[in-house]
Amino acid sequence: MLVRAGGAAQRAVPVSQSARSACRGRLKPLRAIQITEFGGPEVLTEVSLPDPVAGEGELLVEVSRAGLNYADTHQAENSYLSRMQLPLVPGGEVVGLVGGGRRVVALTSSGGYAEKAAVPAATAFDVPDGIDDLTALSMVVQGATAWLLLRKSVHLEPGESVVVHAGAGGVGSIAVQLAKKWGAGRVIATASSAEKRALATGLGADVVVDSTVGDMTEALRDANNGRRVDVVLDMTGGAVTDQSVAALAPFGRLAFYGMASREQPSAVALADLLSHSTAVVGMWLPHAFRLPGRVVHRAMGELFDLVLAGDLRVVAGGEYGLSEVRRAHEDLRSRRTTGKLVLDPSR
Amino acid sequence: MLVRAGGAAQRAVPVSQSARSACRGRLKPLRAIQITEFGGPEVLTEVSLPDPVAGEGELLVEVSRAGLNYADTHQAENSYLSRMQLPLVPGGEVVGLVGGGRRVVALTSSGGYAEKAAVPAATAFDVPDGIDDLTALSMVVQGATAWLLLRKSVHLEPGESVVVHAGAGGVGSIAVQLAKKWGAGRVIATASSAEKRALATGLGADVVVDSTVGDMTEALRDANNGRRVDVVLDMTGGAVTDQSVAALAPFGRLAFYGMASREQPSAVALADLLSHSTAVVGMWLPHAFRLPGRVVHRAMGELFDLVLAGDLRVVAGGEYGLSEVRRAHEDLRSRRTTGKLVLDPSR
Repeated sequence: MLVRAGGAAQRAVPVSQSARSACRGRLKPLRAIQITEFGGPEVLTEVSLPDPVAGEGELLVEVSRAGLNYADTHQAENSYLSRMQLPLVPGGEVVGLVGGGRRVVALTSSGGYAEKAAVPAATAFDVPDGIDDLTALSMVVQGATAWLLLRKSVHLEPGESVVVHAGAGGVGSIAVQLAKKWGAGRVIATASSAEKRALATGLGADVVVDSTVGDMTEALRDANNGRRVDVVLDMTGGAVTDQSVAALAPFGRLAFYGMASREQPSAVALADLLSHSTAVVGMWLPHAFRLPGRVVHRAMGELFDLVLAGDLRVVAGGEYGLSEVRRAHEDLRSRRTTGKLVLDPSR
Repeated sequence: MLVRAGGAAQRAVPVSQSARSACRGRLKPLRAIQITEFGGPEVLTEVSLPDPVAGEGELLVEVSRAGLNYADTHQAENSYLSRMQLPLVPGGEVVGLVGGGRRVVALTSSGGYAEKAAVPAATAFDVPDGIDDLTALSMVVQGATAWLLLRKSVHLEPGESVVVHAGAGGVGSIAVQLAKKWGAGRVIATASSAEKRALATGLGADVVVDSTVGDMTEALRDANNGRRVDVVLDMTGGAVTDQSVAALAPFGRLAFYGMASREQPSAVALADLLSHSTAVVGMWLPHAFRLPGRVVHRAMGELFDLVLAGDLRVVAGGEYGLSEVRRAHEDLRSRRTTGKLVLDPSR
């Protein structure tokens, strides 16, 4: 999700005002999900709103599908990296038409769980023919994140061992495929269930590890034939992160891009990094848009090309109607889901 | 310095034993510096020893010059990353002949402060014609470290801003030149005196910063035209490190390769790295020899080529006889020195 001042939100309006909107030409009120207090899935409420208005540098998207992300659950409880303001229409990614037959997938700070959304033009990407909504939405956050982690955060080199925590998840399922494609010597995926581990294996993981093991350091070394690992992609936090740092080989790097367990890992002493020649690398996608050379656009172009060439596939995780959004968040929080979840605002 | 089990050391011998050595063909006892208890410069004592014997996989070097490193002061007090055993002949780098007219510069775990040294063949590099002793010794630790920091630890990209702490020091003076040569947008060198800052400027630093400033975060931003910095090479520790981490731009990396202040920096919270998209990267040279692809040999080859092409120069820091070694360590500890210090075992 992008940082935008104030977490742009449309205000729910009483009926009289809504009627006035209709008089100005909006015959059909916009269906959307709104939050008026922070909390769990129960705060997600379906409302009618006036159409959002695209401001300077924005595009108005007729939302075909909106992406559902784990980060949305943080946004709803206001525990996300960027603070949100109420009332809030959640949702950071949409795909749809912007007029003139142009179809885009876009990142936005909020507003995605609705029939229409105003999004920054700078974070909207044209979707090539042959890329469906689900795939487009899978690339704009998860795909770009996986690309940036491997290319920018850890600079994966051929032959290296790569651990992908949550290897059946949104970012993980793409990272497993990209790591293999880019020459990783051994891809080790962790996941919490046999079903998810089978999925990771199907995506190309060389070996899978039960993410609920007691000693992740030992489990990762075992999975790497007794050797420490070169790269870890981690969005877990807590002991899993601590034990993954301890599993790094000299010149190994752990990229930390989320904290799904909601538990802080231990702080890292620089003297320990020095004596082991290891690295910890934070990554939060919105910062990538500030990089020179339109790096995210390059990433999206490469990702779409890989999909069209049949070298990268996305895992469908389920489609929910607007009215089912609470269940969607419950499913996300339960960590039961695999692959990409999307919201269909037309139902 | 390399990790080698036991910190290989020759034992000082009483006269009778020394006489026996002479009977076996050693007519002249070996002059060396030895430590029999850990401590400051006062523990460095000149002794006569039997010749070291090159074991399996080792070369016997007739030492022309030995390098003096800041790390040697840690070795002498046993506060270095690899623990040492007594008695110890300190010194981790030598240049000289190995027979057959072959001239090498070599890294070793200890034994360098002597007329002859047994060194691992795996960490000995042939020195091309046209490279003098001082230059060869400047490349084997400092040059290789600077190369690895920029290429492997932080993956410097053209246009990036690079802070080089101790920019007039052994690693720093080379890192300033390499960063410029490899397209850094702005090289910011810190140093503690006007003389050292002038030296860093002469080597190509775009701007220099007094390393004794109260607020390094602010000083670095000021030096970078108000922007946060992309890369920091740091071997300082303490508050300077903390304040340098705080000065990193999104996707910025701080490489930590020493702790000359002998003060631990604050431990780093991974959540902070995540929310700023920043990285901290430890680097200790001996680990680089375990990397595939003979990376250190590649580094040395590139460095010698740059020197021969006139694109990289070393800064002479002074030459000391064996009998002056205590003063050399005092000078290193005082942080008054600039450039490369070497020991001449013939005097």
